[in-house]
Amino acid sequence: MYKYVHGGDVYSQVGNFIDFSANVNFLGMPKGVKRAIRAAASNCSRYPDPFCRELTAKLAKHWQLKDENILAGNGAADLLFKLALALRPKNTLLLAPTFADYEKAFATVASKFSYYNLEAEKDFAVQEDILDKIVCGVDLVVICNPNNPTGQLTKKELLLRILEKVKAIGAILLVDECFMEFVSPEEAYSMKSYLNEYENLIILRAFTKTFAMAGVRLGYLLTGNMLVIDACRKNSQDWSVSTLAQAAGIAALEEENYLKATPIRVQEERTSLLAALHKLGIKTFASKANYIFMLVPQIAKLPDKLKAKGFLVRSCGNYINLDERYVRIAVRTKIQNRKLIKAIKEIIANEVTSDNY
Amino acid sequence: MYKYVHGGDVYSQVGNFIDFSANVNFLGMPKGVKRAIRAAASNCSRYPDPFCRELTAKLAKHWQLKDENILAGNGAADLLFKLALALRPKNTLLLAPTFADYEKAFATVASKFSYYNLEAEKDFAVQEDILDKIVCGVDLVVICNPNNPTGQLTKKELLLRILEKVKAIGAILLVDECFMEFVSPEEAYSMKSYLNEYENLIILRAFTKTFAMAGVRLGYLLTGNMLVIDACRKNSQDWSVSTLAQAAGIAALEEENYLKATPIRVQEERTSLLAALHKLGIKTFASKANYIFMLVPQIAKLPDKLKAKGFLVRSCGNYINLDERYVRIAVRTKIQNRKLIKAIKEIIANEVTSDNY
Repeated sequence: MYKYVHGGDVYSQVGNFIDFSANVNFLGMPKGVKRAIRAAASNCSRYPDPFCRELTAKLAKHWQLKDENILAGNGAADLLFKLALALRPKNTLLLAPTFADYEKAFATVASKFSYYNLEAEKDFAVQEDILDKIVCGVDLVVICNPNNPTGQLTKKELLLRILEKVKAIGAILLVDECFMEFVSPEEAYSMKSYLNEYENLIILRAFTKTFAMAGVRLGYLLTGNMLVIDACRKNSQDWSVSTLAQAAGIAALEEENYLKATPIRVQEERTSLLAALHKLGIKTFASKANYIFMLVPQIAKLPDKLKAKGFLVRSCGNYINLDERYVRIAVRTKIQNRKLIKAIKEIIANEVTSDNY
Repeated sequence: MYKYVHGGDVYSQVGNFIDFSANVNFLGMPKGVKRAIRAAASNCSRYPDPFCRELTAKLAKHWQLKDENILAGNGAADLLFKLALALRPKNTLLLAPTFADYEKAFATVASKFSYYNLEAEKDFAVQEDILDKIVCGVDLVVICNPNNPTGQLTKKELLLRILEKVKAIGAILLVDECFMEFVSPEEAYSMKSYLNEYENLIILRAFTKTFAMAGVRLGYLLTGNMLVIDACRKNSQDWSVSTLAQAAGIAALEEENYLKATPIRVQEERTSLLAALHKLGIKTFASKANYIFMLVPQIAKLPDKLKAKGFLVRSCGNYINLDERYVRIAVRTKIQNRKLIKAIKEIIANEVTSDNY
């Protein structure tokens, strides 16, 4: 039977939980977005605009790109499955560990996979030796930046060398920047400025995480290669993006203050949370997004123990190249983070007590 | 460049139109559904339930099936693309004409197509000779019932013989019943009661048309074959169905009076509209759904002429086996239908006048 492998499935749980397993913006969905959804509910008898014209125009302005460089989807995950049918890669190079749906999506067209193994000793950072993995026969390279679940950023200089090498072998580079809006300064890391120059570059973005609207489903891709967008349209339904999601996205792009505040507030809470975890002797890795990736060998089955206390966290046992000692937690509000730390403290205290017997 | 081929794209038009080109319930979205969407807007920070548990349980009760017989999707069209990856048919038998997205969806897995040509002389009805087309090598047969754009129903007795023959050759029968809730009595035509007995039967249904919620995106499939549902899940993202769509569907299933009134009200308006069209000398075909399929050779470019008067209708020139003399119109409210008839009358009068010169 089919098995769900991601975080955020609070619906399978009985009782109330604080969800640290899904990485959505803890500031919550902006009120303007909620208002836009409510207003759009009166406008849903019609089919949605298949070309998302108003949303696309607004995104084009936001990104200083042309409308034809943008394709919206039913969440970023939807675009991965569209890209699979549009690109039909035979050999895909992935980071290990990384977000599970790249493999799920590209497996639908029978892609084979090679992996660039990220090493704990190197803080799970992508190193120059990834270039040795980009060889003839690979047609697609996927880099999640910052990477999920590690929270590690790949520097622009290295990404540019990757992009050049990918171009040299006639392949495509997909950079998933779904968590980039939590990074400060974003411009120092986003590959956006290379879209016009490199036709082999595709960037994936999501409203889902940035605006805490995961339940609405809205993501988009940016590319200078219009053939890719055309092929996505030819291989999918015309009405992927609901009228409600389009309205939500249009409203979200008005939320400039929210967008500005997000990386600042996330950094504040992340810093406190990291300090508290370190105090407890927990090893963390370079977490640059709105989640923290940690190694907790000293507490067996931490996710289960936290669940018993009302917290959902993401066990990383089902990622390639990781095991159950690795855990990912979202950065949430100050109060929620404190509660989580308190719970971990209690669990540690209990472990010590148990050891005595 | 990619071309949109369906009705309902009011967004590409400048100005206000009465849309007869998309076949959604003219009663409009029930208020309870609207309320449910508005309420759910506060609950969208989380990811949607990947298994649509509450909606599925409610559908199971509605259909007297088990939860595991039901898979919800981002509109019925989404499920076609999921089924393509799940079934990967090599040879698909389609009606001609029929809804364009069967071919679009199954082409993504390089299916070849054979066609059962529906004939104007036989009122575009499926005849027994379709059985001759169901031969070894065909792995999927798709019957839209009532068919879109013809509005013609296939009788249950014939469908059962088709189902038996499809089973005998080891193939799958997909019956698209997206317009079945407009048919009265539905039970006389729906294949629902054969789901438990025939594992090679899949039924497609939509909230989109029935509850006039096309902008929300919600459809589902019913099948006794759990392997099909499992394969759909394996080949697609986990969060296809938004929290808003799930809430809308749950609320829609409470609308028993709306559901009962729908086929009655549609039949009333369809009967008046058909009578008015016949008075104008327009040939129509057995329209059993909430739309009317007609042949208008006497007025060249009727859709363009109606557009100039503020009405969108569906030219059927881009369907296989049809040409631009065929036009499909939705059944709408009494007042809107009267306006349409008045406009057609004016166009005919103008044609006659032009002829005199």
